[in-house]
Amino acid sequence: MNERKDVVIIGAGPAGIQAAIHAVRKKCDVLLLGRIERSALFSAHVENYACVAGVKTGEELLLAGLDQVKNFGAHLMEDDVLKVHQDDEGFGLELESGVTVFTRSLIFANGTARKKLKVPGEKEFFGKGVSYCVDCDANFFRNATVAVIGNASAAIDGALTLTGYAGKVYLINRELMASKELIAKLEESSVENISGTWVTEIAGQDAVQTIVLENGEQLALDGVFVELGAKGAMELALELGIQLDLDTMSHIDTNKKTETNVPGVYAAGDITGHPYQMAKAVGEGCIAGMEAANFAKKQKRKDKS
Amino acid sequence: MNERKDVVIIGAGPAGIQAAIHAVRKKCDVLLLGRIERSALFSAHVENYACVAGVKTGEELLLAGLDQVKNFGAHLMEDDVLKVHQDDEGFGLELESGVTVFTRSLIFANGTARKKLKVPGEKEFFGKGVSYCVDCDANFFRNATVAVIGNASAAIDGALTLTGYAGKVYLINRELMASKELIAKLEESSVENISGTWVTEIAGQDAVQTIVLENGEQLALDGVFVELGAKGAMELALELGIQLDLDTMSHIDTNKKTETNVPGVYAAGDITGHPYQMAKAVGEGCIAGMEAANFAKKQKRKDKS
Repeated sequence: MNERKDVVIIGAGPAGIQAAIHAVRKKCDVLLLGRIERSALFSAHVENYACVAGVKTGEELLLAGLDQVKNFGAHLMEDDVLKVHQDDEGFGLELESGVTVFTRSLIFANGTARKKLKVPGEKEFFGKGVSYCVDCDANFFRNATVAVIGNASAAIDGALTLTGYAGKVYLINRELMASKELIAKLEESSVENISGTWVTEIAGQDAVQTIVLENGEQLALDGVFVELGAKGAMELALELGIQLDLDTMSHIDTNKKTETNVPGVYAAGDITGHPYQMAKAVGEGCIAGMEAANFAKKQKRKDKS
Repeated sequence: MNERKDVVIIGAGPAGIQAAIHAVRKKCDVLLLGRIERSALFSAHVENYACVAGVKTGEELLLAGLDQVKNFGAHLMEDDVLKVHQDDEGFGLELESGVTVFTRSLIFANGTARKKLKVPGEKEFFGKGVSYCVDCDANFFRNATVAVIGNASAAIDGALTLTGYAGKVYLINRELMASKELIAKLEESSVENISGTWVTEIAGQDAVQTIVLENGEQLALDGVFVELGAKGAMELALELGIQLDLDTMSHIDTNKKTETNVPGVYAAGDITGHPYQMAKAVGEGCIAGMEAANFAKKQKRKDKS
């Protein structure tokens, strides 16, 4: 199944919601991809968003936002993006559900890249065996033994990718939550799947040497990839050759128009860097939505002429 | 009476409100100057501000915003700025009430510069005798006859300034609404004050030649300055040597951090240009508030060391 859109927005947090509102009001065919529970706002309490009195939960704000998006006529899909590529007509997104979506312009609004495991050793060994980006760091683990931690498509996809580099790949998860197709691929692969448990500690001397599981079992290894949630924002961006900020390489570089270095690709919200504030996210979302809609409309006119 | 602040924000629209919230939460002494009725949002209806469901009036949104600003501990003054200058310690603002406020950093959040009269001839003769900026254009009317249209301090101040350039200055107003001090100055000046009427048409051939008043009376003149509302945002900015955008000279040039070319001066909201959207305004307000607070705190540390 294929879908064609003018503007696709990855991420249903405040930046993505505001982008969808502004893009759809420019009479574009707009798809908002994502789940509000994945937004950092979802479990937050907000009292500093201008002109919204009192303390609101992130959940109630996001639900109100989804209603707006639907009422204005944008499409919503609670789906994850597995791969993205550029072609002559725009961008193609392979979703976990098996659907492929084509779009003329694309907005990354999928939040900060690094969701933490929050176990002892994680912070200490970051960059010394602990990584949050398979596509960034797989090459450092050629023939090594590694583990990927996570329950969703990002973790499975990461583990599969790592089989092309590492000598041995473990996948540690509480319970796999992904499409049948992806789980079937996993089962055909060389990945050793350890389900029904979780990591309680990452240990080592100067670098990672072991992880400890809930039952006390230890696995000897060289690298730990933390892949919680959907496919890391940064990894999708890297597939398109999008420029990250040169100082920290931790967010997407944008200009005042929220443009990235790739024409037709925009970014808004936490993924463009500090401050991680709802107001900043909607401000960028507004601009990204309008700019992406204008880009899509220009491309359409070109195609017709 | 003098006041000392860390951060002063000119303009109580969504950008100013969001800036005040974020600056005061960084433990700065913050003053928000302005009246919500002056915000372009006040008389608008809003349905596209992310995560706020339904249709809200601008007035109710702004009142909610003022409550937030007060609850977080920022100061509010419903006052207009007449003049602004820079000194060694920061910026000094002369207010219409006679108070002078000194501040380490300053945020312009006072909206678009040009409030229109909406009468026949206004658009046609813009740049051909019709102007919205006394400080920008006074020099073109040396020894000429001009009229200033407006009821508030901006109009009076503009008329007084023009007496230093033009040969004859009329001030046309329904009813003057300004401080006693300013009205006293007007009465001592050479300005001819025509109260209790309004302009119904601006006429001419290639350039402005006459204005028509409500009673049908015509005044022959060379220039018409439309000065509705408070002192034009642009005129205050020009007093500090702030760079406008080079293309249209109609808004303040800022970078992604909302910095202007003058260190310690920031701008947010409609005054920085399109899109004139609430979401864009609060996004810039958030950043301006945090940046201005950081600037003020750095200056404080320098002063102490």
